[in-house]
Amino acid sequence: MPTLPLAPGSTIGVLGGGQLGRMLALAAARLGFDVVILTPERDAPASRVAAGTIEAAFDDRRALQTLAKTCQAVTFEFENVPAAALEALTELGVEVAPPVQALAVAQDRFEEKSFLNGVGLPTVAFANVDGPQDLRRALRELGSPLLLKTRSGGYDGKGQIWVTRPKEADEALASLGGRPAIAEAPADFRRELAIVAARGRDGEIALYPLTESHHENGVLRRTSAPVEGAPRAVAEAERFAASLLNSLEYVGVLGLELFERDDGSLLINEFAPRVHNTGHWTLDGCEVDQFEQHIRAIAGWPLGPTAAVAHVEMTNLLGAEAGRWRRLAREPETRLWLYGKGEAAPGRKMGHVNRLRKLD
Amino acid sequence: MPTLPLAPGSTIGVLGGGQLGRMLALAAARLGFDVVILTPERDAPASRVAAGTIEAAFDDRRALQTLAKTCQAVTFEFENVPAAALEALTELGVEVAPPVQALAVAQDRFEEKSFLNGVGLPTVAFANVDGPQDLRRALRELGSPLLLKTRSGGYDGKGQIWVTRPKEADEALASLGGRPAIAEAPADFRRELAIVAARGRDGEIALYPLTESHHENGVLRRTSAPVEGAPRAVAEAERFAASLLNSLEYVGVLGLELFERDDGSLLINEFAPRVHNTGHWTLDGCEVDQFEQHIRAIAGWPLGPTAAVAHVEMTNLLGAEAGRWRRLAREPETRLWLYGKGEAAPGRKMGHVNRLRKLD
Repeated sequence: MPTLPLAPGSTIGVLGGGQLGRMLALAAARLGFDVVILTPERDAPASRVAAGTIEAAFDDRRALQTLAKTCQAVTFEFENVPAAALEALTELGVEVAPPVQALAVAQDRFEEKSFLNGVGLPTVAFANVDGPQDLRRALRELGSPLLLKTRSGGYDGKGQIWVTRPKEADEALASLGGRPAIAEAPADFRRELAIVAARGRDGEIALYPLTESHHENGVLRRTSAPVEGAPRAVAEAERFAASLLNSLEYVGVLGLELFERDDGSLLINEFAPRVHNTGHWTLDGCEVDQFEQHIRAIAGWPLGPTAAVAHVEMTNLLGAEAGRWRRLAREPETRLWLYGKGEAAPGRKMGHVNRLRKLD
Repeated sequence: MPTLPLAPGSTIGVLGGGQLGRMLALAAARLGFDVVILTPERDAPASRVAAGTIEAAFDDRRALQTLAKTCQAVTFEFENVPAAALEALTELGVEVAPPVQALAVAQDRFEEKSFLNGVGLPTVAFANVDGPQDLRRALRELGSPLLLKTRSGGYDGKGQIWVTRPKEADEALASLGGRPAIAEAPADFRRELAIVAARGRDGEIALYPLTESHHENGVLRRTSAPVEGAPRAVAEAERFAASLLNSLEYVGVLGLELFERDDGSLLINEFAPRVHNTGHWTLDGCEVDQFEQHIRAIAGWPLGPTAAVAHVEMTNLLGAEAGRWRRLAREPETRLWLYGKGEAAPGRKMGHVNRLRKLD
């Protein structure tokens, strides 16, 4: 195992080549690290700012061996990386963070909610659904309607369907391809919040300010940061985040999505064991942004300060919206982040803008 | 010629692979541009964050052809690039900025001071020195001592020597290898200042706040920014910078080094037609930093706002000082920038830190 903290000049491997990997690579470079990307994608956004790329499937044994030989630490930028790949890297003697367990738990919605409840963190009521009988029982026991989701895979609102009546059970399960599923009670929330949090290798915790999320069609559209005038929500979110990080013996940055109910209490919607879209505002709004923070954590460095230095409204640029760069470049309060993706498919995250406003 | 403004997804070429190229590449990536580096150096700091590298001499004709084919705009990160290379790229149909004239003028200290005086900008008194007779005449006419410098090459205090008496002329010139030289009267300054300035393709000008430079052994050690309580110096520096940018029909970022004399008036020491070490504080201290500003300018984008958002003390990490990263990473007010250079030779610029303090 390499000595921690990792010295500048060390090489950090990243599984995945999308925009999160790209912004991780930019942050790592500032601190003097080289980055090598492992991705099956040719000419990926992250590869174009990295010292090297291994173009291969995530479970390609030889690619993992090469990565382990090249890198002193490895992380990942999205949660559909096979957990077995991380286990193989650990066996090959390279430091892997966040921990495999966090990834494995987050990859399965049933395991995730079970884990959360198991460590005392509240979620909506839910039930495992292996077949139509399970779903009909859930409708009886949890009430109606229920949101049926595949246990694994699916993101940005894909792979889920509302179910109201027992007789819809077969069709609903078929629409998910008959895959193992979870049925969730509605959250009845008044707004969606998120908190990005980090834990270092020594157990140190750093929490970013609480933010409000605005979704459209299941995709994050805007983040407003920081949330103000909600001391209960802030205190609860910070307690939940710290508790989750410690329960997972986590290392790195984690994104925690929350529901705020009418009574002001919070439920956890889900967590992502990686840097997170709801943390993009930190790039221009915080002392040390989530990407540098993640690199610091996995490299065994002390965590950086997380205080807000500005109010930020982060807006994702989806599909053709990235074509608005001419106008956006003229807005003095707007910081533009574009991901270098070729094809602006509808709904695809092509970039984001952070619009800044002075703190009061 | 490509259409300006350059759309994200375009490729920008950078001649030179050092830390300035590295930080330009990071800034370009944020805006969705790919960067290709041309450098004779293997595994250069900039190459490790660029989409591509052409490893060749700057005057390699085939390398320049490849660069011109790959890129929609080309810039440079240090001023010892041969002007002929830029001319060749222009002939090959690629947009080159800053303009070749600015580079050619800045490469020759006699041409530089002559140009400055010619457009009404003050410098110390100086004389061209082709041989010992010129130097002895200069000692008579400009007084003693004089600072003898090679007309071209040399940086960070290299290639210069003080001359006091006529009989030292031969030896002094020999110590510069008999190269064409310039003799300069002393500046008698109370402090050194610098201003980083940008001009867009449409003539728009953006000026960064005035800063104070602290040199040690001819090398920049610290920048304090912004300078306060010196309205005359600020006004004069801004007037000089704008006048110089317009006189050169400049496009891009330029660093202007100044002497402040005892009476509060300014002289121009020299200018660098590129992003500049005295502008590194803008990375954490200004709304849009000098590297993004340079990319905006050469891409034909509108310039970004330049206001300071914090007081910054920038300190270069020279040679073994970069080994202090463990301690620096623990300072909450300190942003660390490391350049990924392998060998920490004495005096070599390995990185810098920006120490932030709230604006009053």
